Amino acid sequence: MICQPDNPVILASLSPRRRELLQDLGLKFSLVPPQIDEKRRKGERILAYVRRIAREKGAEIARAHPDSVVISADTIVIFRKSILGKPRNAKDAIRMLKMLSGNTHVVITAYAVHCRDLAIFWQDDERTKVRFRKLSDQEISAYVRSASALDKAGAYGIQDLHANFVRRIDGCFYNVTGFPLPAFAEKWNSLFSKS
Amino acid sequence: MICQPDNPVILASLSPRRRELLQDLGLKFSLVPPQIDEKRRKGERILAYVRRIAREKGAEIARAHPDSVVISADTIVIFRKSILGKPRNAKDAIRMLKMLSGNTHVVITAYAVHCRDLAIFWQDDERTKVRFRKLSDQEISAYVRSASALDKAGAYGIQDLHANFVRRIDGCFYNVTGFPLPAFAEKWNSLFSKS
Repeated sequence: MICQPDNPVILASLSPRRRELLQDLGLKFSLVPPQIDEKRRKGERILAYVRRIAREKGAEIARAHPDSVVISADTIVIFRKSILGKPRNAKDAIRMLKMLSGNTHVVITAYAVHCRDLAIFWQDDERTKVRFRKLSDQEISAYVRSASALDKAGAYGIQDLHANFVRRIDGCFYNVTGFPLPAFAEKWNSLFSKS
Repeated sequence: MICQPDNPVILASLSPRRRELLQDLGLKFSLVPPQIDEKRRKGERILAYVRRIAREKGAEIARAHPDSVVISADTIVIFRKSILGKPRNAKDAIRMLKMLSGNTHVVITAYAVHCRDLAIFWQDDERTKVRFRKLSDQEISAYVRSASALDKAGAYGIQDLHANFVRRIDGCFYNVTGFPLPAFAEKWNSLFSKS
């Protein structure tokens, strides 16, 4: 359950999973795709980078729509201090899953809420540790063939039931799907609750 | 992915979630409902109790089907050293969710694999900590009205997206849905793999 502000709401994201999560909570919003350069700056630390991208995705849209409450976010997968993005192709997906097999990685989602007219700017991030069990080569190639590994950072979707790869989670489950719903809703509701 | 033994497989459980999880992994099995007295013995400790119930659910069926590999399991929710079973009615579900709101509880699934002819008996259990965010009374009653809270221990299903109640998990996600799939599959495959 989520409060609906009086101002219009914009989700500055084209991630279908993020959209579904917020829709299923009952929030009404329109979609505006963010258009920013996502390149990491030289020497920029990982956390600073993901926070900046999440913020920048929303900032420009908030300037163009000063009456709207703009939600933006960015999710990354980190393994051994490197960022795993979306795989370039099936071979790259297999390489990533082999790296993750039997190991623990970290998923960070940074998110931001902007509204010019209400003078709201709020930013936070959520960090979840994910441990994969040991995967066989056959399992990895069957998964890459069957599922949409290619459009996901780290080459897996925890919501795929086929992906019974996840041995344990420490932290927010939703965060791994792309948005830390419970933490977000708690703060959001404290801002927009009418009671 | 899961190995299919040469012997027939029986799932001694009527839980629809457990059945779905194992089916989605690709295992072929038939269902035989366990018929045992699930009462806790006087002075029996919680872990001993859930292990015994999981074992007994399969033992009798394994005796009746000596050629079959019989999987049985039992899942309980523990809060402050008490077991939360399935709620008796909507009012009881609301009472349970109020208790869990803002607190951490523990989910334990015990499971057993029996096969007389192969001389297999294997038993294990998995423990996951689950933290709920603070829930409003409105959220609790909306959830109890909308979802099938009544047929679940602890009155919630983590797989319901409405149940964005779970702030964090420490341990196996699948365990909270009723079966610790990755841990089970790993051991199972080591027993029945043909390569």
